[in-house]
Amino acid sequence: MGLDQRIIEKSKLMWEQCLPHISVDSVVFGFHENQLKVLLIKMTAAQLWLLPGGYVYKNEDLHDAAQRVLTERTGAQRVYLQEFGVFGALNRSEEFFKDYDEGLWYKQRFISAGFYALVDYTAVNVIADEYSETCEWRNIDELPELAMDHQLIYTNALTILRQQLSYKPIGMNLLPEKFTISELQKLYETILGRTLNRGNFYRRIMRFGILVKHEDLRKGGAHKAPFLYSFDPHQYHESLQGLDW
Amino acid sequence: MGLDQRIIEKSKLMWEQCLPHISVDSVVFGFHENQLKVLLIKMTAAQLWLLPGGYVYKNEDLHDAAQRVLTERTGAQRVYLQEFGVFGALNRSEEFFKDYDEGLWYKQRFISAGFYALVDYTAVNVIADEYSETCEWRNIDELPELAMDHQLIYTNALTILRQQLSYKPIGMNLLPEKFTISELQKLYETILGRTLNRGNFYRRIMRFGILVKHEDLRKGGAHKAPFLYSFDPHQYHESLQGLDW
Repeated sequence: MGLDQRIIEKSKLMWEQCLPHISVDSVVFGFHENQLKVLLIKMTAAQLWLLPGGYVYKNEDLHDAAQRVLTERTGAQRVYLQEFGVFGALNRSEEFFKDYDEGLWYKQRFISAGFYALVDYTAVNVIADEYSETCEWRNIDELPELAMDHQLIYTNALTILRQQLSYKPIGMNLLPEKFTISELQKLYETILGRTLNRGNFYRRIMRFGILVKHEDLRKGGAHKAPFLYSFDPHQYHESLQGLDW
Repeated sequence: MGLDQRIIEKSKLMWEQCLPHISVDSVVFGFHENQLKVLLIKMTAAQLWLLPGGYVYKNEDLHDAAQRVLTERTGAQRVYLQEFGVFGALNRSEEFFKDYDEGLWYKQRFISAGFYALVDYTAVNVIADEYSETCEWRNIDELPELAMDHQLIYTNALTILRQQLSYKPIGMNLLPEKFTISELQKLYETILGRTLNRGNFYRRIMRFGILVKHEDLRKGGAHKAPFLYSFDPHQYHESLQGLDW
């Protein structure tokens, strides 16, 4: 069965099983050793790069759908997704299948719920589904052009991630259990895409009250051995509420 | 024409004009003189309290739909709405019209995009539409029970509003042009629903770098006349980006 025929068959199935006009798209940021990447798929049919996305079953919660779609399309398991915005401009997706019949599922107008996550990308195994040539991590400095409005979805997710740095802690599961302040600063700098003043960073991060200082030092560097810290799990989760006035 | 018949006629129109399965709901917070309120409507049919909400025309941007629906249902004009979350749990709305035919528009599964705003409520004139008995501001301390999942939508909006206090400035258009620090603190306390330490508040708000101190004092109080401040519009809008690392 050719690709066109497969798309038409799949379209019929979608009309039966899924809610029309609603889709989900995920921006999964991966961090490891000072590199920030994002998970993309390349569609075999159109040879276009997209964020991993899909549709919502009629009997499925929206959030469950986002988790399922991410796993189906990329193989990524246990990635905790957070909804961050809805993308509902006119003609954001309709043009994509313009050569097909009007009744094609994929050609309808879709309003998409955007989800994002930040994970240690070495902990995620990715695979491509049957419609994708590849599914891979790409450095955020070297992204290919994304189709539809996926550039906008990606950019908004990155903005939200950066904003959250200013009021929510990050780092747990991304850094080793014990880390130096400068390793934590490097994580922030990588996500923000710029260097930060060391003294300001120290004062700011201490205000969160989420770090525990240890007796042991990081040895082996050229400079005076810096202290090691870890996250206080209770304070960390308190601070995640973001209500620290 | 009876109410039931009007609902059935309107349902047909909705199927023609709107995107099925998508709705919008708005949480409009109104503030004035240390009172925080939210805009609610009471449905004539079911005698239930709801957030003002509605549907998206097939040829209309999602955000435009939210603005239009708010104006149509409440009369509120020029209220700048921000999308803050999607509500897509199963059975969040379907039960609401359980006595009607399966084909009724309103009985379908709807995933709703939530929008919120914070305005000076004396600047907004509200009116009720044909399906609503009333549209009114209610003190957030004395809310009636809300139908469907509107309590959840409201609660999430309030949480977002409170979180934004910790990284985005608020107050412009809610306070007089010149205000004292303690008037600003009172605004924050009203939104947070609790008192704040005066010294901590002062230090925290000063760190935003958004206030201009004036030579004139607020006279007439029992205590030493406090200094007046206003917002620096440029710094205020910079700070709205929330990227102040």
